[in-house]
Formats: sequence, C-alpha cells, structure tokens
Amino acid sequence: MSGESAFIDLLRGLPLHPGARGLDDDTAVLELGGETLVLTHDMLVEGVHFLSDQDPADVAWKLVATNLSDLAAKGAEPAGVLVGYMLGADEARFLEGLREVLATYDTPLLGGDTVSGGPPRSFGLTAIGRATHVPVPSRSGARPGDAIYVTGPLGAALAGFEALQAGDDAAALPYRRPVPLLAEGRALAPMVGAMMDISDGLLLDVWRMAQASGATFAVDRSAPPIALPETRRCEALRWGDDYQLLFTASERADLPVPATTIGRVVAPLDGAPLLLDGEPVRSSEGLGYSHEG
Amino acid sequence: MSGESAFIDLLRGLPLHPGARGLDDDTAVLELGGETLVLTHDMLVEGVHFLSDQDPADVAWKLVATNLSDLAAKGAEPAGVLVGYMLGADEARFLEGLREVLATYDTPLLGGDTVSGGPPRSFGLTAIGRATHVPVPSRSGARPGDAIYVTGPLGAALAGFEALQAGDDAAALPYRRPVPLLAEGRALAPMVGAMMDISDGLLLDVWRMAQASGATFAVDRSAPPIALPETRRCEALRWGDDYQLLFTASERADLPVPATTIGRVVAPLDGAPLLLDGEPVRSSEGLGYSHEG
Repeated sequence: MSGESAFIDLLRGLPLHPGARGLDDDTAVLELGGETLVLTHDMLVEGVHFLSDQDPADVAWKLVATNLSDLAAKGAEPAGVLVGYMLGADEARFLEGLREVLATYDTPLLGGDTVSGGPPRSFGLTAIGRATHVPVPSRSGARPGDAIYVTGPLGAALAGFEALQAGDDAAALPYRRPVPLLAEGRALAPMVGAMMDISDGLLLDVWRMAQASGATFAVDRSAPPIALPETRRCEALRWGDDYQLLFTASERADLPVPATTIGRVVAPLDGAPLLLDGEPVRSSEGLGYSHEG
Repeated sequence: MSGESAFIDLLRGLPLHPGARGLDDDTAVLELGGETLVLTHDMLVEGVHFLSDQDPADVAWKLVATNLSDLAAKGAEPAGVLVGYMLGADEARFLEGLREVLATYDTPLLGGDTVSGGPPRSFGLTAIGRATHVPVPSRSGARPGDAIYVTGPLGAALAGFEALQAGDDAAALPYRRPVPLLAEGRALAPMVGAMMDISDGLLLDVWRMAQASGATFAVDRSAPPIALPETRRCEALRWGDDYQLLFTASERADLPVPATTIGRVVAPLDGAPLLLDGEPVRSSEGLGYSHEG
C-alpha cells in the first residue's frame, strides 16, 4: 500500500477522538451540550480536483457542495463553513460561486483563512452541521440481509466533464455544480443501516462501506441506473463526483425518496468485500478514484 | 488595497454567520445546545509559511500549534482538530510531529482529508474548542482607558529562524515549535477587554485590534520586552510567529499571569489606529507580515 490509504492507516495510530470513528467515515461526530455536531474537511487541489482553466465560481461551488454532501450522507443540516483560500486570479468569480452555493443551501460563512501560494493552488473547506437523527449514520452500519440502494444515476458527472471538455457549459452542469442531497439524507437517516455519498466511484465506495461494516456487498452490475450509454456502464460505475447517496436498509423499507436496489449485504466472504455479479473482488485496484502513489 | 485584506473585504459581502463576528476576529463562535464552540482554520503553504527543507515534524507542530494559539486567545480549550494533508515526502516525520503536538496539548484528532498535489504543498487545520468564558474575548472589545499588555518577549521566533538558517536546531526551537498559551488565555479571558494572539508582528496586530475596536492604541515603542539585542527592536516588533497574547484590561487589573504594559487605549484619532511614541501611524504598510499580492 502507498499514498492515501497508507497515510490514513498511520493516522489511526494517533490519539483519535471517539467521534473520529476510527477515521473510517467521511465525517466526525462531536457531542456537545445536548447537540450532536457533524464535521467534515475536504481540500481541492488545482490539476487534481479542478482544472486550471475552470471557472473559479464552479470551483467554489464544488468546494462547498462536496462537503455539504458529506453532511447530507449523515442526515445533518449545515450550520456553517470555514474556507481556506489561496489568493490567485479572479477572486471575484470565486466569490460569486461561493455566494451562490451558500445562498442555495442556506449556509452561512463562519470564517477561515486567506494565504498566498501556488500554483498549484489549493483550497480547504470545513463544514459544520447539526445531526437531525442520532445515532448519526455511518459507513459501518451495514448488516447481512440489508438491501443496498443508490439514490440516482451514476456517470452524470463524467458526462458533464466530457461536455466541459467539448465547451458545452450547460451540459457540463452535473460536473461543474454537484448537488448535495441534503433533504434526501435527512429523510433517509432514521431508516438506514449505513450511508455515505458516492464521491470516488460507486464500486470503490461500495468496497469501502463493505470493509467498514465487516460485511460483503453482493452487487448486480446491471442494476445501478446510469446517465451514459449502456456501452459505458463500466466507466459510469467507476467514475467519481456524482454525489448520489449509497445506503443500506431493509428490502421492505418504505423509502421516503426514490432509490434503486443494486444488491444485497451478505455474510463476510473471506478477503472479498465485494461480490460483483457473483465474482469475488479481492482488491480495490481499479474500482474507482483514489489518491495513491 | 490588494491581496488578503481586499479579499476579506469582499468575503464580508457574503451571508455571514453572526458568530463570524464580521470576519474581524481570528475565530468564529458557534452557540449550540448550551455550549459555546470556538472554531478556527489556518493553512500553511510551502515556501510561504514553512521552508521546503524544514523538518516535517516541525511543520506539523506549527500547523496545530498556531491554530491552538487562536483558541488560546479566546480562552477556549481544544476539543479536537481536523487535518487537511497533501501527500509528499516523509509522511512519517509529519506524523511524528502531529503525534507530539496533539499529545502535548491533549487534543484528539477528529478527522480530515488527504490529497495529492504540489509542490508547493499546503496543509490545512481546523481546530474546535470549547469556550471556558462567555462572552468569548474578541479583537473588538478594547475601550479607551484600558491598558495594553503583552504576555512575553517579541522576536524570539525571529531569533529562532536565524538559528535554523545557521543550522542550530536547539536554538531554533521558538521558531520550530511555537507554544500556544492555552492556560494563560483561559486565565485571562474573564478580565480582558480584547485579546488576540500575535501571529503577524506586534505592531500590525496592535493595528488590527485597534481597528476592530474602533479605538486608537497609544504604544510606547520601548516598552515591549524583546528577545533580541536592543539594536534590533524595530524588527522584533514587526516579525511574526511569536504567538504571545496581546490584550487590553484595566491598568489596575490583578493579572493572573505575567504581562507587560506597552501602552494605553485612547479615544479614536481620525485615521490613525496607532500612536507610536506619540506619532500617528496612518497606514499598516510595513508594520508586520501580511499576504498582500
């Protein structure tokens, strides 16, 4: 192992807050004065998470929306954000995008930091939310017998990315302006076993949820809805940035939002967190996007 | 105006949380279920805030310590931190420094994000603390008649920086491993008018506190203790990274920690937040370190 997952393994050796959930989750949970806070921090790096010539307003939108998506997956409502901003070109467009995303999701700015540096530039965002349901859903709550669901089509961001490359800004919207499913997450929180947002590709995130839950996820490759031609199903299930919600719940659950069953949680199969069309998958290599190397 | 202060002026036009304190403070304040949280986020950038060949353990220490210093200035006790980490060389040394600083200040890791990118690399840190005294001290609470104090000598970090350049790691400690004055901040919180940590140079931070308070600070240039030869007083009062506390309180206050009176808050003098040895200072240019571009 190298890169991100190796580093996170090393981080687990540090003094962790109980609410850090062993660093197995996307968010931390902090109980304070009768309230439960949900906290998340993500960075976006030029050339890695966004293109140098991308509209800074879209970068600002994505920075906030991806963190709010983490709150959505925990059923939390946003309380505010802290922004780490690296000065550079076109601050006005960045601020315009920041204003739009904060207004759209009724989220106030709490503060942050402004620094010089780059290229490549990088931005950080910390989102703070209030849990609307406790226990706060985690990645690790899936139990054998549960059905596995996704809230919507995969591959929409990939299609949007290709539209952006082709200069079609309107068709690029799903890539440029991801939508955090805050209302859906709040509605689902009381009835899910495990829940997370799909940021790095469906199959990789399924793998991670299965590992965190100590179970095996049997997934039917043809089941997830996709936003691309059927010939590109393979890519649609591996590309990230869609921010649909992945969750487990009873197969008889009366779900409050539309969702598609994509498989079933089964008893842990030695060394294979994922069964894809019945074939055990023993390595996460090639399942999605990760910062390895 | 350009750079950092211009950007922050633009940020003030966004929907701000009341606890953002108009972005005039180093921290945000969030009241939740009977508790008051204090939140801060800072970034460190390679080549700007740390040297490329600096020990990564010292970089990790500084990343956490500077944010805990912001909590100290609000009288808050650390509840946990979120780390934004950019992968690169020598993760083990970074983790060692992270372990040391978290253990020293009894602060657990809550979570964070790991990304690829750089050079230059950048790191982010969000610190969450619990207020031990409300109202939480701000930069804006100074009132005419108050005395102005600092908790210790300025210029120690500059001396440490020069020692590091000369290869003397031990003498470089004040630069390599800044100390957040958490106990001092908690003890002072109930009796201060305004309080902040000195991160960008005494005179610039005095200027900022005076502006936030709508007052003028009359400072005696010879009063602050310095950690450099008297011939270098000018630099000692302008160099950053010392993390002493700057605060205002009654001149008759029975202070719980050692501090030196460096001047007095007076009625606002038009256009001059700072009176230095009786001379009005009308521009913050050259008073300390700022990220102007």
